[in-house]
Amino acid sequence: MPDREVMARAVALAARGLGTTSPNPVVGCVVLDAAGEVAGEGWHERAGGPHAEVNALAAAGDRARGGTAYVTLEPCNHTGRTGPCVQALLRAGIARVVFAVADPGALAGGGARELRAAGVEVVAGVLAEEAERVNEAWLTSARRHRPHVLWKFAATLDGRSAAADGTSRWISSAASRGQVHDLRRRVDAVVAGSGTVLADDPRLTAREPDGTLSARQPLRVVVDRRGRVPATAAVLDGSAPTLVSTAATPADLLAELHERGVVSVLLEGGPTLAGAFLAAGLVDRVTAYVAPTLLGAGPAALAGTGITTIADAVGLDVDDVSVVGGDVRLSGRPAPRR
Amino acid sequence: MPDREVMARAVALAARGLGTTSPNPVVGCVVLDAAGEVAGEGWHERAGGPHAEVNALAAAGDRARGGTAYVTLEPCNHTGRTGPCVQALLRAGIARVVFAVADPGALAGGGARELRAAGVEVVAGVLAEEAERVNEAWLTSARRHRPHVLWKFAATLDGRSAAADGTSRWISSAASRGQVHDLRRRVDAVVAGSGTVLADDPRLTAREPDGTLSARQPLRVVVDRRGRVPATAAVLDGSAPTLVSTAATPADLLAELHERGVVSVLLEGGPTLAGAFLAAGLVDRVTAYVAPTLLGAGPAALAGTGITTIADAVGLDVDDVSVVGGDVRLSGRPAPRR
Repeated sequence: MPDREVMARAVALAARGLGTTSPNPVVGCVVLDAAGEVAGEGWHERAGGPHAEVNALAAAGDRARGGTAYVTLEPCNHTGRTGPCVQALLRAGIARVVFAVADPGALAGGGARELRAAGVEVVAGVLAEEAERVNEAWLTSARRHRPHVLWKFAATLDGRSAAADGTSRWISSAASRGQVHDLRRRVDAVVAGSGTVLADDPRLTAREPDGTLSARQPLRVVVDRRGRVPATAAVLDGSAPTLVSTAATPADLLAELHERGVVSVLLEGGPTLAGAFLAAGLVDRVTAYVAPTLLGAGPAALAGTGITTIADAVGLDVDDVSVVGGDVRLSGRPAPRR
Repeated sequence: MPDREVMARAVALAARGLGTTSPNPVVGCVVLDAAGEVAGEGWHERAGGPHAEVNALAAAGDRARGGTAYVTLEPCNHTGRTGPCVQALLRAGIARVVFAVADPGALAGGGARELRAAGVEVVAGVLAEEAERVNEAWLTSARRHRPHVLWKFAATLDGRSAAADGTSRWISSAASRGQVHDLRRRVDAVVAGSGTVLADDPRLTAREPDGTLSARQPLRVVVDRRGRVPATAAVLDGSAPTLVSTAATPADLLAELHERGVVSVLLEGGPTLAGAFLAAGLVDRVTAYVAPTLLGAGPAALAGTGITTIADAVGLDVDDVSVVGGDVRLSGRPAPRR
């Protein structure tokens, strides 16, 4: 099998860990035996659990000797000169290691260097883009020392997040709303402004299709500098932890969340808070659910960016366009400013 | 070949006439011989030219005898008891006629009745939806006695048609703008409000990719009740006919255009004029080009619909979602109000 094909499988394995590995990355690993047959697979299943390489090597057993390990992230060496994963690969007799993305936390060389020094053939960068994508939140956090921010919004085709009288249920389809709960289950924190809390009184919990609370809940964060949120707000209902933050800026808020070990943030509203994050360059991904409906009046989905002319518009590098229950979902990363 | 398969070919042939048959419909025809082999194809190529059936029968020659004719629209009988197409089919010895859409202009029975009376087997309604779609403009005009109205707009992902300072070039991609010129070539009239003319000074002509004027130009229509458009406006440059209308309502404007033989209208702006058409229930199709960019300020793509609550939002029955040069194109027909 070509390296890219095996790595694609490792990326798919890594994705299984989304939502349960924070503050660790998601990692997938496939071990081929010396004859090139799949001998073992594994992924990092949960924070505190064994790393992907250890799981895949355990599955491969003796067949790993002389074989190749495909890992979505550079094997770690962080507990010493030969870290747990590097050590495990060497002990299993792996002859070749193929990885996708370098460990951003590693000092020059990292696990790859250790492996090469021990005589293992190492290939880096295979299917790096796909592996970056699956680990986007953790990599952003590791590189920028702040949480990854995904701004999600739903709007009509003419860009309204609600009607003129404030009604907004349901702009987006049931399938789109279901995906939002999937997103909430996967992130460490959900952030909303006090305006949204006052207008819509959302719970911001992750719920199953039957309405019951999901087993894993993100930290609910309300930005409320002026103490406007009443004690009766649904977001304070005790069904999941809630942080009311008085941070003055998006950067301050992200620093506060980073300190608490939050790797990924889902920014859910409203337009002004989203505008402040965009203006500060602190949105890493935008996912829009555009409903095929028209209003012609009502609050806009985005405000307060400070952008006044078309040349300064924030362009997105879109990597996903799909139809979800009749809505168009569009997702991409803000492109670097010109 | 199954009937649906042959009719799909006939629909594709009909589409070749889009832009050159007005005020006639587009029609495609495939003639199979008695053995079921394709004997001839034809379509209505231009107003004043022969009908699709006549072209297909001419191509089939003697092989039409005992064969089947597939026509996207019920064959006409409008010049007498046995009209030209019905007569031509009978004269050619066609044994079976399959058509998709009934002629909305025909009195009870129409061509199908004449054919049946003459002993021809007639099947109606095959692939009717596809055939309706290709002939949407003409059928709307024939049924409603007013032009078909396609509202086209381009907006950012947050629903802005321009930035706060009025700049809007180019919100949409070059490929999207090219498609707008294709649309202009196909319609009889392009309509804009005086506000758009004053703000953007558009030419509203159909142009080729190299910028030269297309051979066929739509009538340019400016709605200007208060005489605000100056004589120096680009839309009055003489490069194509222009009508300055003082019609008080969208219905009045469409009546005026219907009288002039206009079958299809492309409504290009701005937000208030589009809102007036939508509020009057006079938009038959909406095609949006949504650019993957964010502004956070600037005029909305739609205004003045009078819709104040989410339950009254205009839903679209979307039949096309595609990516055009990085933009998302979404097209559909306004769904009947609840």
